[in-house]
Amino acid sequence: MNKWDTVAIFGVGLIGGSIGLGLRKRGLARQIVGIGRSTERLQHALDAGSVTEITTDLAAGVKNAQLVIVCTPVERIVEHVMQVAQHCPTEALLTDAGSTKLQIVSQLDERLPSDGPAFVGSHPLAGSEKSGSENADEDLFKQRTVVVTPTSQSCPTAVETITNFWSSLDAQVAERTPQEHDAALATTSHLPHLIASVLAATTPAEELELTASGWQDTTRIAAGDPELWRQIVNDNRDNVLTSLDHFEQTLSKLRTAIHDQDGAALLEILTQGKQNRDAVGD
Amino acid sequence: MNKWDTVAIFGVGLIGGSIGLGLRKRGLARQIVGIGRSTERLQHALDAGSVTEITTDLAAGVKNAQLVIVCTPVERIVEHVMQVAQHCPTEALLTDAGSTKLQIVSQLDERLPSDGPAFVGSHPLAGSEKSGSENADEDLFKQRTVVVTPTSQSCPTAVETITNFWSSLDAQVAERTPQEHDAALATTSHLPHLIASVLAATTPAEELELTASGWQDTTRIAAGDPELWRQIVNDNRDNVLTSLDHFEQTLSKLRTAIHDQDGAALLEILTQGKQNRDAVGD
Repeated sequence: MNKWDTVAIFGVGLIGGSIGLGLRKRGLARQIVGIGRSTERLQHALDAGSVTEITTDLAAGVKNAQLVIVCTPVERIVEHVMQVAQHCPTEALLTDAGSTKLQIVSQLDERLPSDGPAFVGSHPLAGSEKSGSENADEDLFKQRTVVVTPTSQSCPTAVETITNFWSSLDAQVAERTPQEHDAALATTSHLPHLIASVLAATTPAEELELTASGWQDTTRIAAGDPELWRQIVNDNRDNVLTSLDHFEQTLSKLRTAIHDQDGAALLEILTQGKQNRDAVGD
Repeated sequence: MNKWDTVAIFGVGLIGGSIGLGLRKRGLARQIVGIGRSTERLQHALDAGSVTEITTDLAAGVKNAQLVIVCTPVERIVEHVMQVAQHCPTEALLTDAGSTKLQIVSQLDERLPSDGPAFVGSHPLAGSEKSGSENADEDLFKQRTVVVTPTSQSCPTAVETITNFWSSLDAQVAERTPQEHDAALATTSHLPHLIASVLAATTPAEELELTASGWQDTTRIAAGDPELWRQIVNDNRDNVLTSLDHFEQTLSKLRTAIHDQDGAALLEILTQGKQNRDAVGD
């Protein structure tokens, strides 16, 4: 027996496509409706087996859904969740996959009617420099962390169901407040993206020939979609600026150590970096 | 028929071990002598099949070598090449695998007797955060770039033979002056290493749990040996400081763009980064 009769996925890119594929391959949903604006992209998702139905009509797409996952760009999520809530059954559960949480969750807490469908914010830490449902992977979330961000307004049953939903895709769920999420992700995701971009941007074209795996690893995520990242950074601006402060303080110490040929100070930073990196592993 | 009768490798870590394994698996050398200080490490290299003989006696190890590759840490290379030159046949060819070139090559140009064995500097761009001959790979240099850095004092035949040596391990050889090499590598290798270290070092331990593949990629090389990198950065100090200047100029523009919510300026940096990253590929 399927866990869900009908799941709707609004936005069938890498994340939405992988959710659909993961549900289908695990036999967790009878019907998976892919919703989007681009018929071509929806058709790709259907061809890839990520969804069982497609539609550009949001109202029709969510009409019978018990669960709707909004996987659209950060700046559109609030608007899209509001639209979904107007057209889906009252007992449906809504979540998203946005890389930031505070603005999205607090706006929805304020705007969603309390007698309508329940929303719980989610962020699967499974992004990639790759995009599109053509890169969808049924195991994209396997052993990856998904942060679920309930608030005092969240219905405990809804939080539990959304948690179980991500667990059913083999993800490890971590619960955080939206504030905690955004502060942590500024350091663990948004700052690394910006730093990778600056590194790649400042490498002169004529020296790209002498790059190797170190440069490739360090800059890999700079290949991500600039517009999506502009939205994320703008949305989480204060936390990102704070993370940037911490980074620049240590960078300044590093510069002084190199300039003064202070081997001990340089070693201290390199060693701290190695300790943290070794703690995370491959 | 083997290309070489006897090759000696001084320092049997990842690079030295992979050279030995690559030569053996391709049937390019009859005898490969591993030289080092640690009997235990030499025994590992012998067990791994990277070398056919081992010795801690440098003079004995290089006595019959036609080719000696010095794969020791940057700060020891000059001293080690000088020692090798005293004990190897006059017609032997010497090279190294150091991550910096100007100081090493210019000191050796000055100190090596003109009637002794010829030295040509090399840098295989195939380092890794992994180390030791237990990670040796016969194809470590396959499709990787090796920079060979001749000077006006280099014997053209020696340069050609060293070039062919790396090509025989399936590497792509790029020729640069030592100055060009060090200026480029400051940007393409040494700066990324430092930035990865600072990123990893400034991530609070309690937030490591919320890292994902973006953080992991961006900080991967921070797991490298701090002491080896201290030597590299110190040796290439002026170029590294210049690269750091360029990085910090763009980082400062980025900070202003985020602070001022100047989406166009932020997009410009993210887009330039993506262009450079896409140009390099996986």
